[in-house]
Amino acid sequence: MSDRIGVGLIGTGYMGKCHALAWNSVKAVFGDGPRPRLVHLAEANAELARQRAEEFGFEKSTGDWRELIADPDVDVVSVTTPNAFHAEMAIAALEAGKHVWCEKPMAVGYAEAERMEAAARASGRVAILGYNYIQNPMIRQIGELIAAGSIGTVNHVRVEMDEDFMADPEALFYWKSEASSGYGALDDFAVHPLSLLQTLFGNPTRVFAHQAKPYADRPLGAGGRRAVETFDIASVLFEIGAIGGILAVNRSAWGRKGRIVLQIFGSAGSIVYDQERMNELQLYRANGPASGQGFTTMLAGPAHKPYDRFIPAPGHGLGFNDLKVIECHELLRAIAGEPARVIDFAAGLTIERSVHAMARSHAEQAWVSLNS
Amino acid sequence: MSDRIGVGLIGTGYMGKCHALAWNSVKAVFGDGPRPRLVHLAEANAELARQRAEEFGFEKSTGDWRELIADPDVDVVSVTTPNAFHAEMAIAALEAGKHVWCEKPMAVGYAEAERMEAAARASGRVAILGYNYIQNPMIRQIGELIAAGSIGTVNHVRVEMDEDFMADPEALFYWKSEASSGYGALDDFAVHPLSLLQTLFGNPTRVFAHQAKPYADRPLGAGGRRAVETFDIASVLFEIGAIGGILAVNRSAWGRKGRIVLQIFGSAGSIVYDQERMNELQLYRANGPASGQGFTTMLAGPAHKPYDRFIPAPGHGLGFNDLKVIECHELLRAIAGEPARVIDFAAGLTIERSVHAMARSHAEQAWVSLNS
Amino acid sequence: MSDRIGVGLIGTGYMGKCHALAWNSVKAVFGDGPRPRLVHLAEANAELARQRAEEFGFEKSTGDWRELIADPDVDVVSVTTPNAFHAEMAIAALEAGKHVWCEKPMAVGYAEAERMEAAARASGRVAILGYNYIQNPMIRQIGELIAAGSIGTVNHVRVEMDEDFMADPEALFYWKSEASSGYGALDDFAVHPLSLLQTLFGNPTRVFAHQAKPYADRPLGAGGRRAVETFDIASVLFEIGAIGGILAVNRSAWGRKGRIVLQIFGSAGSIVYDQERMNELQLYRANGPASGQGFTTMLAGPAHKPYDRFIPAPGHGLGFNDLKVIECHELLRAIAGEPARVIDFAAGLTIERSVHAMARSHAEQAWVSLNS
Amino acid sequence: MSDRIGVGLIGTGYMGKCHALAWNSVKAVFGDGPRPRLVHLAEANAELARQRAEEFGFEKSTGDWRELIADPDVDVVSVTTPNAFHAEMAIAALEAGKHVWCEKPMAVGYAEAERMEAAARASGRVAILGYNYIQNPMIRQIGELIAAGSIGTVNHVRVEMDEDFMADPEALFYWKSEASSGYGALDDFAVHPLSLLQTLFGNPTRVFAHQAKPYADRPLGAGGRRAVETFDIASVLFEIGAIGGILAVNRSAWGRKGRIVLQIFGSAGSIVYDQERMNELQLYRANGPASGQGFTTMLAGPAHKPYDRFIPAPGHGLGFNDLKVIECHELLRAIAGEPARVIDFAAGLTIERSVHAMARSHAEQAWVSLNS
Repeated sequence: MSDRIGVGLIGTGYMGKCHALAWNSVKAVFGDGPRPRLVHLAEANAELARQRAEEFGFEKSTGDWRELIADPDVDVVSVTTPNAFHAEMAIAALEAGKHVWCEKPMAVGYAEAERMEAAARASGRVAILGYNYIQNPMIRQIGELIAAGSIGTVNHVRVEMDEDFMADPEALFYWKSEASSGYGALDDFAVHPLSLLQTLFGNPTRVFAHQAKPYADRPLGAGGRRAVETFDIASVLFEIGAIGGILAVNRSAWGRKGRIVLQIFGSAGSIVYDQERMNELQLYRANGPASGQGFTTMLAGPAHKPYDRFIPAPGHGLGFNDLKVIECHELLRAIAGEPARVIDFAAGLTIERSVHAMARSHAEQAWVSLNS
Repeated sequence: MSDRIGVGLIGTGYMGKCHALAWNSVKAVFGDGPRPRLVHLAEANAELARQRAEEFGFEKSTGDWRELIADPDVDVVSVTTPNAFHAEMAIAALEAGKHVWCEKPMAVGYAEAERMEAAARASGRVAILGYNYIQNPMIRQIGELIAAGSIGTVNHVRVEMDEDFMADPEALFYWKSEASSGYGALDDFAVHPLSLLQTLFGNPTRVFAHQAKPYADRPLGAGGRRAVETFDIASVLFEIGAIGGILAVNRSAWGRKGRIVLQIFGSAGSIVYDQERMNELQLYRANGPASGQGFTTMLAGPAHKPYDRFIPAPGHGLGFNDLKVIECHELLRAIAGEPARVIDFAAGLTIERSVHAMARSHAEQAWVSLNS
Repeated sequence: MSDRIGVGLIGTGYMGKCHALAWNSVKAVFGDGPRPRLVHLAEANAELARQRAEEFGFEKSTGDWRELIADPDVDVVSVTTPNAFHAEMAIAALEAGKHVWCEKPMAVGYAEAERMEAAARASGRVAILGYNYIQNPMIRQIGELIAAGSIGTVNHVRVEMDEDFMADPEALFYWKSEASSGYGALDDFAVHPLSLLQTLFGNPTRVFAHQAKPYADRPLGAGGRRAVETFDIASVLFEIGAIGGILAVNRSAWGRKGRIVLQIFGSAGSIVYDQERMNELQLYRANGPASGQGFTTMLAGPAHKPYDRFIPAPGHGLGFNDLKVIECHELLRAIAGEPARVIDFAAGLTIERSVHAMARSHAEQAWVSLNS
Repeated sequence: MSDRIGVGLIGTGYMGKCHALAWNSVKAVFGDGPRPRLVHLAEANAELARQRAEEFGFEKSTGDWRELIADPDVDVVSVTTPNAFHAEMAIAALEAGKHVWCEKPMAVGYAEAERMEAAARASGRVAILGYNYIQNPMIRQIGELIAAGSIGTVNHVRVEMDEDFMADPEALFYWKSEASSGYGALDDFAVHPLSLLQTLFGNPTRVFAHQAKPYADRPLGAGGRRAVETFDIASVLFEIGAIGGILAVNRSAWGRKGRIVLQIFGSAGSIVYDQERMNELQLYRANGPASGQGFTTMLAGPAHKPYDRFIPAPGHGLGFNDLKVIECHELLRAIAGEPARVIDFAAGLTIERSVHAMARSHAEQAWVSLNS
């Protein structure tokens, strides 16, 4: 029993529940390694923590997250609280010798993110970020197709991420429209496409960005209106070495719910992907007679690892939460010292750096270079 | 702790693992009721059982499923073994006072299915079948749309279920091509569309069926070929009272992986659904100006219950395994005496009856009526 | 000038205009052969005929179609009047030594269709029917793919044709609901899928059909309601030798506008086509690694003859009317004694025979065989 | 007969044939106005001109385009020659008192385009450009939806135009890679999206552009390789007043054949369109319960004018060449002094100006403003 990894979970909102489900399922799905022991759960108060611990199957609960970090039975800590708390909690956990699985983005400011990365480096522990879209077997398949030369040399990439939770102009003003929350769509969304780009091609070496506010003000609950301070839309031109591209994000795009569209153009073919149809992938290969060429739609199946660990039959479909189970398994592999497909704090910091470079480009109305 | 329901699992293949994942997740997903206690797991031999119990988080394991049924800590038994074992195990469990969650189809023969249903009735226990497609929030939404009159009075339905695991003519002959395994696509597939039809409209009242063999024989591993005895394709005309329709199933349909297409036509609109895109639904409503009419594609979201228990954001996608978690939750509701969306042994028996009526229609080349 | 073919056009409704456009464009599109001379146009009265002749570019006009047939400058006659007039006009034209291009279906009754076929045979002239869907370059491509063995041996076919012009239950009763107009969807629609099946595979050798009325009665303009006498829906099981299949037609299918879906399953792949996206074709080939298999969507282009005669760039799209231009060109080839892709009166008669066999099957509730 | 408009056609390539087909069909399609008289056709030499005149139905032919312009029977001249000839021919025609229908882009250089616009203004004649995509009934429908407020106030637009005729890196170097041909994708493609933007929203007021070369060099027919001088890819950020957006064009995008995708986001909904499926339109409206919202796919039909002039039934599909017939009809309306949906030389000049501003932005790596 001593080799079972002890899990602590801080936060039980959207992502907290997602982590909890992953910790509950990872062993049953993958079958390898010892079964994680769900040790300690922390929430804003003791009662909520107790209730969630019972729901999520954790042994202990606390209204004080520092107790969880002090718990010697805890080996790894899931940090899923609002962004403003990430740095403090992650650094405390690392300093206490715990591994850390922190939700993205790393922190509200770049300085904090740097401190997190330094803490991780100093600790020698595994510290990764929750960029779960890179875990989709179809994204892994895209990487393999590109590596195998299926579309030749990539020269142009377009990536869009759009949702509509900020699309209603008459929705009440709330913290996401305050400047203190960050830039807007750039931190909310751009980090996800950047995680995909990083995994597939590397980080941008040059960016030109423009941000926009679809609505100048929004209504206040108490009456009257308040000027919007963040940008719900950002449009970015970028280069990753010889690859050029466009990154477009919009959190006020009516009708888009979880759209992340990748269009990858190479010298011998193209690949298209949309997260709203996350079990599909489109590949065009420029070979054979013209009459037979076209985009081939592949449905996710056991041939696309690790889909097979979830379902032995093709075309039956993974869900969003399954990606978190894969991420959890990669984390366990990293902790075990095996090669793992994760975005650690060092890699995550480069994503944050790209975001801040984009914001600077917008302010300066000029290209900004990012030297690796 | 005494109110926690004790779970036994027999079988750990495709569906066994799916049940195990559901039992592990159901409390964390839904939050209500006590957390199930994973008590006992049975497999073909003790060593495999021990290994799977560790993977799936069960306390005890056994190579003898009768031990599991005799275990007083077990309250409900998941039966996920090959079809030939369903009747014996389910009946034994019911007679031991356990609730039963049995994978479909009920049994190989109709007589056995009748005995199962009788045992369930006699036991007073909850006994349900694993028809998970009816648990898709989009199928539930279809039911609500129809009930709300969104497409008027339904008059015609087409349903297709196609996969390609039998499509390769040079794949070795195996038990699914033997007559002892049943009719073929009719039992393998037709039961699923029938579960959807039953849930939405009721059971067929009249059927005309034709079965076909795409390949007359298949190669044997030892050399030579053997005549195929089952039908990989079945095409059925049916009536459900005043609703007419077509049911088409094909397990040798190249390129189809998990396709279950519903086309529902009513006096005021239409609904189209495809399980390969299980997070989408298409609705056509005949109102407003002609220039604006069209099929509306809805993406699954929190508004489609119980999607919200899995993910708070729309368009992010449930997976196939999530349907089993919903089914598990419905089972728990049934056990708790609450209204539940399940196909119990009585309802399941009527599905089996429809299948056998179809086979008889094929043999007699005539319509066969099914009086309720 | 003497080698220019003289054209007569009877009728200027939906299909009449379509013929007129084809006669105006065929030479400019294809470039070969002499330019047809638009000689004579007949309509119900002289004034309408005169007006249409001016619009469509015909030299002469008449309110008496017999004058057109008597015109020695006319070599070929387009018959595009209501079905009830086809036989009389086509036979008169053939007896006058004219070639005939008659819209489908041939006639209201089978006996009339037989007389038309006999007249064509006796005349030695070219007599073809307006089955334009077979002229789609994508349908031609399907034929070539099958002939080349791309999907192996075809074993199962599903074809659906659905529109919604009869879908409104409160639309006034009109002649299409009267028994004198024929069976209903069977003559209106089934002939089109049959033309595709004939072109690709041959005629049905055995059929089992069921017809249905979505609405028992419809309102009369003068008040009250009248019982519907025709069937807006028909569902047919068929065999074409060793190929089995389903033919489904529905002219009250809300949301379907010009849907003709073909699903063709073979031993090595599948083909899917939908007329509502007439410039696309989907092909699945079961070769290569499983991770890379999928349906390939081909866009119509110059490689799919004779698309190149219309547009030199791929993916720009032909329209419905372009199919008629291709049909017109095939007719001219037939008249010139060249091999042509047409459905002549003899082939068309076999389509009518299949329709009547379906209706008989419905009446007898039994399979009906069609011996070639 | 004297009121029939006399047509001259210079050039018979891709667009020349397209004009010819339009002139042949326009009266038969629309029925109004007198039938155009196809008077004179000019090609590079007399023999080719004679041959094409016979194919396209023109009375006279010439190897000297100045003869055509001098012909008093010619009232309107279609100029469809390579871009380098547009200015000379169009100006000569205008000075001779002819109306002009010139293919896009106006000219190779901006100065020439200005001279063309001045000539048109001085002549008092109708002079329009061949921007046929704006004639698609679905684009017209988009305009009507926006005007009716269906998607509220538009705040963000993305438009992409991609094809793959330059995608093969081993295709021989030809004139399109020479600097003398222009910028590259910017003139080849960007003008089309700009025509759509202009029609729907107006001209860009500010642009930031970046161009890219996917391939540094291309093989020469005689051996060796030559450096590519034009940009096959361009990515542009733009503003049209308060509307922001992205314009992306790529003529080396494998798999794209005629893709022009519009994504239009407003405060109350969204619209999506793809020219590769030119008979479809997607509309999202943010009203009603969340469970029922989604993108509605509308199929082109008679309700979308002037589709009804081509086909009376919905969903049957217009083709690319039909757009030219609509454009021809709009030209005839303009000549008749009626309101017409055309891009005349004055409006076209503003499109050219935008293109040159984009190229300048690329050179200066800075935003460029365009004051109207």
